[in-house]
Amino acid sequence: MDTFAVYPGTFDPVTYGHIDIARRAGALFDRVILAVAHNPEKKTLFSVEERVAMLKDAASDIDGVEVDDFGDLLIDYVRRQHAQVIIRGLRAVSDFEFELQMALTNRKLADDIQTVFMMPSEAYSYLSSRIIKEVVRLGADVEAFVPPNVQACLKKRLNPEG
Amino acid sequence: MDTFAVYPGTFDPVTYGHIDIARRAGALFDRVILAVAHNPEKKTLFSVEERVAMLKDAASDIDGVEVDDFGDLLIDYVRRQHAQVIIRGLRAVSDFEFELQMALTNRKLADDIQTVFMMPSEAYSYLSSRIIKEVVRLGADVEAFVPPNVQACLKKRLNPEG
Amino acid sequence: MDTFAVYPGTFDPVTYGHIDIARRAGALFDRVILAVAHNPEKKTLFSVEERVAMLKDAASDIDGVEVDDFGDLLIDYVRRQHAQVIIRGLRAVSDFEFELQMALTNRKLADDIQTVFMMPSEAYSYLSSRIIKEVVRLGADVEAFVPPNVQACLKKRLNPEG
Amino acid sequence: MDTFAVYPGTFDPVTYGHIDIARRAGALFDRVILAVAHNPEKKTLFSVEERVAMLKDAASDIDGVEVDDFGDLLIDYVRRQHAQVIIRGLRAVSDFEFELQMALTNRKLADDIQTVFMMPSEAYSYLSSRIIKEVVRLGADVEAFVPPNVQACLKKRLNPEG
Amino acid sequence: MDTFAVYPGTFDPVTYGHIDIARRAGALFDRVILAVAHNPEKKTLFSVEERVAMLKDAASDIDGVEVDDFGDLLIDYVRRQHAQVIIRGLRAVSDFEFELQMALTNRKLADDIQTVFMMPSEAYSYLSSRIIKEVVRLGADVEAFVPPNVQACLKKRLNPEG
Amino acid sequence: MDTFAVYPGTFDPVTYGHIDIARRAGALFDRVILAVAHNPEKKTLFSVEERVAMLKDAASDIDGVEVDDFGDLLIDYVRRQHAQVIIRGLRAVSDFEFELQMALTNRKLADDIQTVFMMPSEAYSYLSSRIIKEVVRLGADVEAFVPPNVQACLKKRLNPEG
Repeated sequence: MDTFAVYPGTFDPVTYGHIDIARRAGALFDRVILAVAHNPEKKTLFSVEERVAMLKDAASDIDGVEVDDFGDLLIDYVRRQHAQVIIRGLRAVSDFEFELQMALTNRKLADDIQTVFMMPSEAYSYLSSRIIKEVVRLGADVEAFVPPNVQACLKKRLNPEG
Repeated sequence: MDTFAVYPGTFDPVTYGHIDIARRAGALFDRVILAVAHNPEKKTLFSVEERVAMLKDAASDIDGVEVDDFGDLLIDYVRRQHAQVIIRGLRAVSDFEFELQMALTNRKLADDIQTVFMMPSEAYSYLSSRIIKEVVRLGADVEAFVPPNVQACLKKRLNPEG
Repeated sequence: MDTFAVYPGTFDPVTYGHIDIARRAGALFDRVILAVAHNPEKKTLFSVEERVAMLKDAASDIDGVEVDDFGDLLIDYVRRQHAQVIIRGLRAVSDFEFELQMALTNRKLADDIQTVFMMPSEAYSYLSSRIIKEVVRLGADVEAFVPPNVQACLKKRLNPEG
Repeated sequence: MDTFAVYPGTFDPVTYGHIDIARRAGALFDRVILAVAHNPEKKTLFSVEERVAMLKDAASDIDGVEVDDFGDLLIDYVRRQHAQVIIRGLRAVSDFEFELQMALTNRKLADDIQTVFMMPSEAYSYLSSRIIKEVVRLGADVEAFVPPNVQACLKKRLNPEG
Repeated sequence: MDTFAVYPGTFDPVTYGHIDIARRAGALFDRVILAVAHNPEKKTLFSVEERVAMLKDAASDIDGVEVDDFGDLLIDYVRRQHAQVIIRGLRAVSDFEFELQMALTNRKLADDIQTVFMMPSEAYSYLSSRIIKEVVRLGADVEAFVPPNVQACLKKRLNPEG
Repeated sequence: MDTFAVYPGTFDPVTYGHIDIARRAGALFDRVILAVAHNPEKKTLFSVEERVAMLKDAASDIDGVEVDDFGDLLIDYVRRQHAQVIIRGLRAVSDFEFELQMALTNRKLADDIQTVFMMPSEAYSYLSSRIIKEVVRLGADVEAFVPPNVQACLKKRLNPEG
């Protein structure tokens, strides 16, 4: 059985938590696509192109994992890729509820596509792209949370004189 | 890539929620073992043999799904089966936290085995074997929650004169 | 429209939190029955008769509220009373989830009976019969949590020499 | 006893989950007003007039239920309607906490008005107006979630060329 | 041992819940600094100067408590004050998770600074600056939630003709 | 100001999570007493004497930390020790709610004693004495979770032939 999976997200920017999930998913499924959501209504710090580039760089050494972007309905994108699985990372209870609503909505739209939830390593379980951006803006060093090139991009964008 | 999965549980007794998860998992992995936990310290209504029999009956029409039981450490059982995945169903926040603790403990014991969480259909999302047993004891009809043969066994055991 | 409500519980023993809910429910529905669950499988500190007596004493001044006990399926008891509503108090998230499961199970058994959730005053929002019993056993004074006669019964039962 | 209830909300737009709650409330109270909140500080997709019209259309067959709008303090509106009850739907834990804060604040402002929480059918328990709008914008068909005329309005507004 | 603590927040505006926490913290630590966060990216109703002034007024009678503001990384500010403790109030589960993420991020940045969580009195456990502002705008009296001078400022700013 | 703190618990047995909290508390308060609860109604794996001995061994190198046991009301024990603070570890949301109920009950009994919550390192955030006992019984190695002497005691008690 060939099982293909899509791991969608905003990845604004990618963190070690995302990479950890991607690596674990890569070991289970025949193909895993890290799919950067392109949503003109949602303001992001980095453009789709920048987010894709950082993700490609960070995931370059994981076998069976590719990077792509999409701008339409997730379910339609998953079908186009002939994938059967949507992967989502779970960290906290508050995530959990929103994820459940999203997953049940997706199931109503496409019952044959399954959402599976995976956990990052507990060392990354509290990582949030939002908090990382906030502390970089105030001058913090975030090398424990994101790859070096991502940290450089964050500093350049958020704290150019820091 | 051949990916084998174990879906462990007490299954005391199996409900339509478990069957729904099993069917969805069967569509993603090459082999799914429904593994009944045999824990002498935990009092159950039905014996391991009874739980295995009810589960076999309920899952007989799902391709790629087998039924087994185990009495040792889950991680050791998963390795013995050459499986890479543990499947757990998620319904509520209270489940979620205990499941997370269990999954992180298992990961510490075996980092190469992944726990993935799946959701039952929302029609079964509130099903609890404990509540089912309680209402059967008081005379309720639970044909909406469990297969007919399980309902018969529950009535015989819990409410023989009902 | 005559709307009758049942407020079921173990009431082992009644606390000011229960009384607060009963008073608020009494102002909304034409008849409210405080119904003490009689479950031989569940060990309680006080017998059904004792729990009913303490509840009657505590609720004697609330108009439109009666006290009763029941030992069968809640839904069957509610029908027998020609009631349309089940009232449950909500305090914490952990309550909330179990209550939701119970309410959805009851709805599956009887879709025409509605469970409505009410909040006690925030002064009683953290009250738990279990914690009250534990602290009385260790000698605490609980006059802020339960009526005087209930406190006397608790002391006599749990800490006779205190 | 005549008990009047107000079921307030943004209803941007109404979903089958709201209608389900309205129908259940209509069976318990002598009069139920579906009250569309008019808050100039909160951006909505549809105007108050549009939201009221869609709600009237969707609720036209439910006895004892009316539709109205209000722009002042909920508690003041409830008093003006001589109502004693505020109805809120409960779906998830995250709802639950915000609802509890809101309800306790309202109680502090008016202790004689009770907030009661009701559950939608589990088939609608995960419905969120926000997610519905997001998927319509991306081209999804939402006939399982909202009445036909609401779906038409959503498509016209969010995805006119879809 | 001299232990200094920082109680950071937006305080937009201060409520009786904040004051309650400050008073309890003042009894435990040698020095407690109420530190108003100055974040140009986050829109507030009151300026830093206004928030500091209201806080000073409200906390003037608590021994060992000072008021200050800061605009850089919290951890850097705490170090500059030679403090060892960050104090945060906990009310609800939803708070709890965000607070945990923030606290774990801060710990990664500075493992020798501890975040401790304290509870306000249950009478203030549901207070939220956001809800207070919303109800004042609609004409509510909030003297039970905030000091008199804060209520006056809120009315002047949000409901000048009310 | 001399601030004394009590960190109460069942410690059945002590884990690295408890030790982590004790170490962090020791850096903030002048004296920290690790207080083993002696509750004859609660069945434990190890006796009070055994739990005290394991805790003393595990905490022997932490300055300002002592080990004791108590069998009465926590609040009474805290007063007898002239302590002003109760320390509790927070891991998960489910902990959080029970802890909040307990802390609010204690505050009602003694408003001048504060409960403060601290977080263990995220590496220990999922540790549960219950899960540790369960996996040891089934043969797991738990050296990542508890000190070596505790692991030896656990194996001897739970899996003597393992």
